[in-house]
Parts: sequence; C-alpha cells; structure tokens
Amino acid sequence: MYSGKARAYTNIALIKYWGKENQELIIPMNNSLSLTLDAFYTETEVTFSKELKEDQFYLDNQWQDSKATLKVSRFLDFVRSKTDSSLRAVVKSKNFVPTAAGLASSASGLAALAGAASDALNLNLTPEELSRLARRGSGSACRSIYGGFAEWQKGYSDETSYAVQIPSSDFENDLSMIFVVVNDAQKDISSRDGMQRTVETSAFYDGWLQTVPQDLAKAKKAIKEKDFIALGEVSESSALKMHGTTLAATPPFTYWSAESMKVMNLVRQIRNGGLPCYFTMDAGPNVKLLVERKNEAALLSAMSAHLDAKQLVVAHAGPAIEILSKEDA
Amino acid sequence: MYSGKARAYTNIALIKYWGKENQELIIPMNNSLSLTLDAFYTETEVTFSKELKEDQFYLDNQWQDSKATLKVSRFLDFVRSKTDSSLRAVVKSKNFVPTAAGLASSASGLAALAGAASDALNLNLTPEELSRLARRGSGSACRSIYGGFAEWQKGYSDETSYAVQIPSSDFENDLSMIFVVVNDAQKDISSRDGMQRTVETSAFYDGWLQTVPQDLAKAKKAIKEKDFIALGEVSESSALKMHGTTLAATPPFTYWSAESMKVMNLVRQIRNGGLPCYFTMDAGPNVKLLVERKNEAALLSAMSAHLDAKQLVVAHAGPAIEILSKEDA
Repeated sequence: MYSGKARAYTNIALIKYWGKENQELIIPMNNSLSLTLDAFYTETEVTFSKELKEDQFYLDNQWQDSKATLKVSRFLDFVRSKTDSSLRAVVKSKNFVPTAAGLASSASGLAALAGAASDALNLNLTPEELSRLARRGSGSACRSIYGGFAEWQKGYSDETSYAVQIPSSDFENDLSMIFVVVNDAQKDISSRDGMQRTVETSAFYDGWLQTVPQDLAKAKKAIKEKDFIALGEVSESSALKMHGTTLAATPPFTYWSAESMKVMNLVRQIRNGGLPCYFTMDAGPNVKLLVERKNEAALLSAMSAHLDAKQLVVAHAGPAIEILSKEDA
Repeated sequence: MYSGKARAYTNIALIKYWGKENQELIIPMNNSLSLTLDAFYTETEVTFSKELKEDQFYLDNQWQDSKATLKVSRFLDFVRSKTDSSLRAVVKSKNFVPTAAGLASSASGLAALAGAASDALNLNLTPEELSRLARRGSGSACRSIYGGFAEWQKGYSDETSYAVQIPSSDFENDLSMIFVVVNDAQKDISSRDGMQRTVETSAFYDGWLQTVPQDLAKAKKAIKEKDFIALGEVSESSALKMHGTTLAATPPFTYWSAESMKVMNLVRQIRNGGLPCYFTMDAGPNVKLLVERKNEAALLSAMSAHLDAKQLVVAHAGPAIEILSKEDA
C-alpha cells in the first residue's frame, strides 16, 4: 500500500486561460496568470494497492459511479505509469467550499489529486513537474501548485507547459477577492466546450491572442510595483475580452446573466464613486471582485446595499499545495 | 421663400454600422443593412428665405438654442451651397415617437431634414443623391430614404457612399420588430464616441470588419429567400459582434444593462422553447426583437410575462421618405 494526501487551493485567473492548442495534452493557446485563494480548497487522499481490481473514488464521502471514476482513473494512469501501471487506487476527496458559493473547483481538485498520487508513489516531483502533472488533469490546476500569483507558461509540449511562481513581495496579501454568487444562472456551456467553440469559430479569437502578451506584461509589472489599480484594470480588461470572444463565435453564446451584468455595472458605479474595485468572470455567471484588503469592508457594505449578503463570499490569497501526510505500508 | 416638407421613418440596422473611415464625410468602415420602421418618424418643414438673419430651429414646437441649431445649420450649409449660400431657414421638426419608447432617432430626423431642405430648393435629387445628402447629417439617416430593407454601401468618397434599396418581394411585411424599452439605462457613451473608441483601440475591430461581408451576404440571401430564421440568426450575430468589440476597447465599455441582458436571455429562452425570435441592439440598453408578424402576438404574450407591457412597442416595416407638400412663393 502506498498512500499520500494533499490539500490544494483553487485559483482564479486574472489574465485568462481561454483556448487549447492541444486538446489531449492540455497545452493552452496563451499564457495565463492567477491568484491562488484560501477560501476554496480540496483535500484528497490516494492509496495505491496491487490488491484492488479497480479504482474507487469517493467525493465528499459519497461513492462515485464508473463515469465519475473514469476521469480520475485516466489521470491516475499518468501517475502510475511512472512506477507500476498495475496499481489500483482508492481516492477520497473532499471539497471545502463555502456553502453559499456552491462552487466546486476542478483546479483545486485535480491539483490535490496530482499531489496526493505523486506523493503516494514517492515520485519526488519538483513544483514544475507537479504542475505539469496537474495540468494533464485540468489545465488551470497547474497553477494551484503555487500560493499567491502564478503564471502558466504555455510552452509547446507536455514537457514545457507548466506554471511558475510569480515573485510578489507579498503583494497578494494586500488583496481580497469577493465572490458574488448570482442566482439566475443560465444553462451552462462548459468551459471546455466554450473555449473550443471560440478557438474554432470566433472572429475575435486572433484579437484575443494578440493582446495577451501585453496584458501579461502589464499584470506582472503591476504585481512587481504593487500597483493595485493597474492590476485591477488589466484583470477586468482581460476578463471582458475573454467574454467578448464568445459573442463572435458561431453560434454566439455568453456566460453572462442579467445578475452578472447588474454586478459588473455596480462595480463600475462604485469605482466611479471613488472606491477602487474591479471584477473578473470565468465560464459561468458568478462575478469575482478584486479589491484592496483595506477596502474590503467598504466594498462589502456597498455591494450588500444591492445584493443579498449571502451571495458574497470573501477570499484572500491562499498558500501553495500542501502535502498532508504520508504512510507507506 | 422656398418651402419643403418631408416625413422620414427611422431604421434599425440588422447588419450594423460600427465605425467611420472618414469622420468628416461620414464614410463608414463597413456596409450595413437596415429595416425601415413605421412606428418612429420625423416630420420636418424647412422654409428658406433671404430675409432671415440666422437659422431658426423648432423641435416639437420648442425653440432650440444656438447649440442645437448649429447642427442643423451645418447640415443646411451642404444644401444651400448648391443654390444660394446666403439663404437662411426656419426649420420646424416634429418627432413622432411612441411615448413609452422615449426614443428620438437621428436617422429619421436627418433624413427628414435632408428631404425637406432639398425639396424646398427644388434640387430634384435622385434617391441616391438624397441618401448621400442625408448621410452628411447622420450616417444611418442615409438608409431612411428607403422603405423596407436598405443597404448603405460604404463607398470610398462623398460621391460613392450612399444607401440603396434591397429588393425583397415584400418580405419586410412578414416581419415585426418589438422595441423593449429598458428602465435601468447606464450612463451613455454616444454612438459616435463609442464607435470611434472601438475603431481606434479595440483588439476585436479587425475581426469585426472581416466578418461583415459574409454577414451581409447571408442577410441578403435570407431576404431574397424570405428565410426568417437565417435573417434572424445573422442579425443577432451581427449585433452581438458589434457589442463584443466594445469589450476589447481601451478602456472597455458596454451599452448593456442588467435588463438588456435579461431581455436577451429571455429571447434565447423563448426561442429554445420553439418560437422563432431574435434580438438586435444599438448604442444603448434597449433591445429590439425581430419576429415574424404571424408570431408577434405570441412573442408579446411571452415577453409580457416577464416585463411591463408598457416597455413593449411594436413596429412594422415603414415606407420610404415622403415629400409632404411644396410651396414656392
């Protein structure tokens, strides 16, 4: 029996990942930049054994059927192929997500699975190797190996596509991210399908790709200089561009609901009123607000005048992946 | 005294005009295609005289100050330069707009002014010459010279940029357009400023321009074949692309409010429920729905379950500009 356990935190991209160059290897079309957060994380324990006939997967103490388990098994195949492909595993995973948010994160889930599995097998991976491994499970998981700010360097192959830490002099600890959980979710197009349709059909996709390098440079400069406004502006702009690309897809689509729009316009209004705050959005209707920690209470107060306080979930910068225990028997 | 009077109807672009190649001459970056509507129109009477010291402009029976009059005077300069630049005019204009809509249209206003002024001076313009003249007042006005469907051919100079009629075998009479007047208007960026910022700064503007020719071809084919669904799809797609370009401008902006988004998502939902309907939007938060006339009542009923009926204004295809009276004294 080989056992490992890890805790990984979710991350939210400030410069967005949007589109794959290689679907199977999950090599992205552009670099992305994220902030790892403390409020949402996954703890996963993996126990490999030669005695098991098949992989077993428990999520939040619930046994998962073969369909859900298949995704885990496929990922574990990468890991066990490095030692002994005949091993089978019991995987126990728990998502720690504020109830109000109702958001599970594939980034924290696959990063924790990569951490636990590679630890169980004593692979002794460097952070970059672990990031590469997590990437095969879910692209954005490769950034959850690090705390604070991380950049996923797209690379050009399985070996060269992974995330790295962005030095920040603790700037991340000056920041808060407020998740605004909206109630009028549209029928979803998955992130995976949405980005693929956009890459294949959007007249705006080239324009998106062309501006990512300068947006990344602006974001890294802002982090280096601890310039909140510059970071907020480029983050909001990157999110709007990402969502703009979907409007030129065939057929066009959007992740925005009426309440998303209300929140975005509210942020603009509060900002115009003198409180520096910005938003970002991913492949769903929830909105995430970026604000300086010193202004967190003021923003929460301003937002709660227009929203149910239960819709607001506060997060701060989170740590790197943590290896929690290790028992080889 | 030379007097003329004209009535011109507004038009809504289905393939959008978005961006000027020449600001002064109002030559657009791309062709556009519109439907002239009956519900919104302007009646304007122009009386030229050598006895007047300055132009006078009355809008809805209200005397207008020098700032409002200046725009009219500048336009009249084009017209009187063709006969006698020393003439001055009294201009009386009335906008006929359903009260609920609260929308005045520069397209109908400038087309009516062009029609009345050129008639007063006996210029005997062809429709294309009148379209060119109206264009100098307001770009989209050049399409209001025609009833039904019109295409503004961008051209490359003052002489070559004008609208033409699109033959339709009366397909326009199968259609209804429902204006949805939303109540939560954001602070406006004018159409003029918005398109200019987009042309100058949007990473998506090239993508926009590249797709207009194929969208126009699709729309004209749909009109020829009386294919409502094809016309609806390409119209909605053109509007979404136009609005998508603003999200990649520097700084980004949007004309959408939460209620705009609600209406757009409602249209998608009703369409997914089996009622063919589409939307378009211009440089403001109101949404215009395109539906077959036979389904107009069903769509109004479906929408009024979610909106105040007072927000809904129905329009049908409108006629060409009408010259109403003529008195040379």
